[in-house]
Amino acid sequence: MIIMPIYVVGAGPWDPELITLKAIKILRNADIVYYGSLVNEEIIKMYAPRAQKIYMGHVRGEDHNKFVKQALELAREGLNVVFLKNGDPAIFGRGIEICKEAISNGIPCEVVPGVSSFTAAVAKYLIDLKGVVVLMAYPNIDYNISADTKVIFMGTKIINELITKLRNDEEAVIVSRLTYPDEEVVTLSKDHDPNIDVKPPALVIIRRRGGYEGGE
Amino acid sequence: MIIMPIYVVGAGPWDPELITLKAIKILRNADIVYYGSLVNEEIIKMYAPRAQKIYMGHVRGEDHNKFVKQALELAREGLNVVFLKNGDPAIFGRGIEICKEAISNGIPCEVVPGVSSFTAAVAKYLIDLKGVVVLMAYPNIDYNISADTKVIFMGTKIINELITKLRNDEEAVIVSRLTYPDEEVVTLSKDHDPNIDVKPPALVIIRRRGGYEGGE
Repeated sequence: MIIMPIYVVGAGPWDPELITLKAIKILRNADIVYYGSLVNEEIIKMYAPRAQKIYMGHVRGEDHNKFVKQALELAREGLNVVFLKNGDPAIFGRGIEICKEAISNGIPCEVVPGVSSFTAAVAKYLIDLKGVVVLMAYPNIDYNISADTKVIFMGTKIINELITKLRNDEEAVIVSRLTYPDEEVVTLSKDHDPNIDVKPPALVIIRRRGGYEGGE
Repeated sequence: MIIMPIYVVGAGPWDPELITLKAIKILRNADIVYYGSLVNEEIIKMYAPRAQKIYMGHVRGEDHNKFVKQALELAREGLNVVFLKNGDPAIFGRGIEICKEAISNGIPCEVVPGVSSFTAAVAKYLIDLKGVVVLMAYPNIDYNISADTKVIFMGTKIINELITKLRNDEEAVIVSRLTYPDEEVVTLSKDHDPNIDVKPPALVIIRRRGGYEGGE
């Protein structure tokens, strides 16, 4: 039996037009597609209609490892296994971890980059990324880092804290459910009531005050 | 005459398979494609064969503004104008600046995100992005920022300085000409001779020591 390489593929944000040609090519050959709660299922239906879909949900830790272990077995049996990740799998997405695990078990693996939700958000709302840009993901938040732009991933739970810790000259652009039909964007400064209702997934982009200019 | 929207489109890294469906759709409708020195011309030949190609080279400042001004006129005359940018146009790529200029002149404009070279590099060499990630572009380098991973764009000229300023527990992965046929990658620590020959474009990824594991 030929061992098949595993692919960890970035699907981009929700919008299926932001997927790459390489991702589509790999999905078309997939026998099994593992996907998490943030992936747009339309993408799997369109490009891997005959593949077995395995939903991983909001899986973490040991449960995640079980899926990976199962995937390694399937690749060893000669099946084309794809992990489909929202956005770019290299940005806080565990994609690289999966490939390292596969390779250390003798199974080839490749991470296929995708369009990150954070650049899709700043593109859509024309938010200049100037000077030094910091990316952080909950729970690894460092409030002391000084930068022109700070992007916080997976921060829905700590919106309240993020807003109250804004400096006087900063504002936070919160982009919720980017490219979904119910996308919402709001700009808040320190003075605002932080008890707002933000649906996940959301990005928080903190930058010097100045407002955003819509591109649409 | 109908004013046409201008599109600023990310082409992804050199590899034409890393372009998005949306980018292709927009290129197919283009009458004029402006592109800089880092864009893979194969992409324009493939997806916009009948468009007029305008090479901007390593253009900066006033010269860049002249191209933008010209582009605004052409859009006003009803032509489909595309600025094609390497990687993701939102990351130190001036794409957002172009759209703001267009919109302030009454011309609709959209930035279409792409796969960033930095995530393509960390995907290919399985470099974990953990904790806090900092993005900087020459000349806006802040050597004092502490982070788990620092990514420096356009730093070819200051490789020497970057290497000598590494901390003892850090190493720099330098990825030159990502996905070009003559791609090169090298891992250096503080002790190495910094006088190496690195061809642009190059990314410098600084992280805690540990080596990279190739995914290919």
